[in-house]
Amino acid sequence: MEQLAENKCFGGRQLQFSHDSWSLKCAMHFSVYLPPQAETGKVPVLYWLSGLTCTDENFVQKAGAQRVAAELGVAIVTPDTSPRGEGVADDPEGAYDFGLGAGFYLNATQAPWNEHYRMYDYISSELPDLIEASFPVDGQRAGIFGHSMGGHGALTIGVKNPQRFKSISAFAPIVAPTQCPWGEKALSGYLGEDRELWKDYDACELIRSVESKPEAFKPEALLVDQGDADNFLAEQLKPELLQQACEQAGVPLTLRMQPGYDHSYFFIASFIEDHLRFHAAQL
Amino acid sequence: MEQLAENKCFGGRQLQFSHDSWSLKCAMHFSVYLPPQAETGKVPVLYWLSGLTCTDENFVQKAGAQRVAAELGVAIVTPDTSPRGEGVADDPEGAYDFGLGAGFYLNATQAPWNEHYRMYDYISSELPDLIEASFPVDGQRAGIFGHSMGGHGALTIGVKNPQRFKSISAFAPIVAPTQCPWGEKALSGYLGEDRELWKDYDACELIRSVESKPEAFKPEALLVDQGDADNFLAEQLKPELLQQACEQAGVPLTLRMQPGYDHSYFFIASFIEDHLRFHAAQL
Repeated sequence: MEQLAENKCFGGRQLQFSHDSWSLKCAMHFSVYLPPQAETGKVPVLYWLSGLTCTDENFVQKAGAQRVAAELGVAIVTPDTSPRGEGVADDPEGAYDFGLGAGFYLNATQAPWNEHYRMYDYISSELPDLIEASFPVDGQRAGIFGHSMGGHGALTIGVKNPQRFKSISAFAPIVAPTQCPWGEKALSGYLGEDRELWKDYDACELIRSVESKPEAFKPEALLVDQGDADNFLAEQLKPELLQQACEQAGVPLTLRMQPGYDHSYFFIASFIEDHLRFHAAQL
Repeated sequence: MEQLAENKCFGGRQLQFSHDSWSLKCAMHFSVYLPPQAETGKVPVLYWLSGLTCTDENFVQKAGAQRVAAELGVAIVTPDTSPRGEGVADDPEGAYDFGLGAGFYLNATQAPWNEHYRMYDYISSELPDLIEASFPVDGQRAGIFGHSMGGHGALTIGVKNPQRFKSISAFAPIVAPTQCPWGEKALSGYLGEDRELWKDYDACELIRSVESKPEAFKPEALLVDQGDADNFLAEQLKPELLQQACEQAGVPLTLRMQPGYDHSYFFIASFIEDHLRFHAAQL
């Protein structure tokens, strides 16, 4: 693990690292914000998953999360959104919604994607293991959140790994990738045409499936913010499908439609404080 | 004036515009944050001047100022850092500290720079006139602040225009461009080799000159934050020279050396709230 950057921020440290990932078989960057409280003990940790085209840096620079993270004493880890590097396959036309910058937080089964595109393993196992081994964080107090494609990642990985992630929230998530153009393109490309296999990476399908499980495996609460002036709302995001799935499964969802807000980091910055306090209260 | 972007942010509006500047003889971008209070009446306005290489967007995306601006009901205008466009002269070697992105907030006298590089006129006259004519802001309650080269701009333009700017602050400003490499390069290039002419754009020289003026022409307060881990501190920034000048002239300076902070926007974000409250209290 190599440290690439360090900046003091709100009394804590904003750090960036590179490491060789075994699950993705490439070098990966990630960023970590350590609040001042991490100087003297272990702190809870949140994993932020970004959306299409992002790297680990967008959230770090634009969300303004460090202020409240410093107040609450919470670390924030921000990974990249796909495997990276010269040997990693990319969309032949360089599409923004498939390939590099668009890993969709799943384990690909189709060649050539199955060689490197294993973001599900990276986020659910490799990265938390590395973080817990390297930084003063308490892995028993971990949460996950994200934006758009990263909201999809947070919901699906969070619901499937309740031992690992104790709190889940999202901004403008893709809640049903089996039912929108971004998702259908990604799932067919990475997983093939058998739509049954897609359900394992669809938050609505996964939440409906917890209906039959013991209470311990149902999320205690979900917080989702969605701007009603978001250009992707009707075609790609469809929060009403998440609402239906949560009602069916008995999962308490707080879905807040935010009037006038769009899909940008200005929207995220406006409500990031609420999400940090939501997670801290559960951790 | 053409609107390029609008994003809702903390209940207000983050806007970007393009306009044809008469003082710079080129098309210029600027950004404006209008707080929610601007929907129902005129609000105070702050002008933020950015540092070398920046455009109007860096502060907007990275400083996290909108939250407190929305709370206090203050508009923030962020101009670009130099004239722009194909017809505008640039450093022949594309240096980051001269030419495009490095206008140093002065009126150049040397060819070819004197054709477009008149950022002093733009910031002290043209832009505030345009803003007051176009947005619900109260020009009698205007302040100015900035970072690095923009801290130099805020101090020099603020001190010279007390009727226009009622409050002044800076992050890691170049306080004495006549005495540091960045400043000597810029002032000799834009103004020629007569060092007497440089004094008109040196904050320390200007502050010393207010000693002989009536109280009304002395700044009532100056707030400067400076990271002590800033790589440019000793060679370029030299805050001790500002402290000496203010003591000599009887100008009350609050100079805060911030331990461990560097020259980045992570430093600015950490203390922007204090600056916004400093300005709001005076306006």
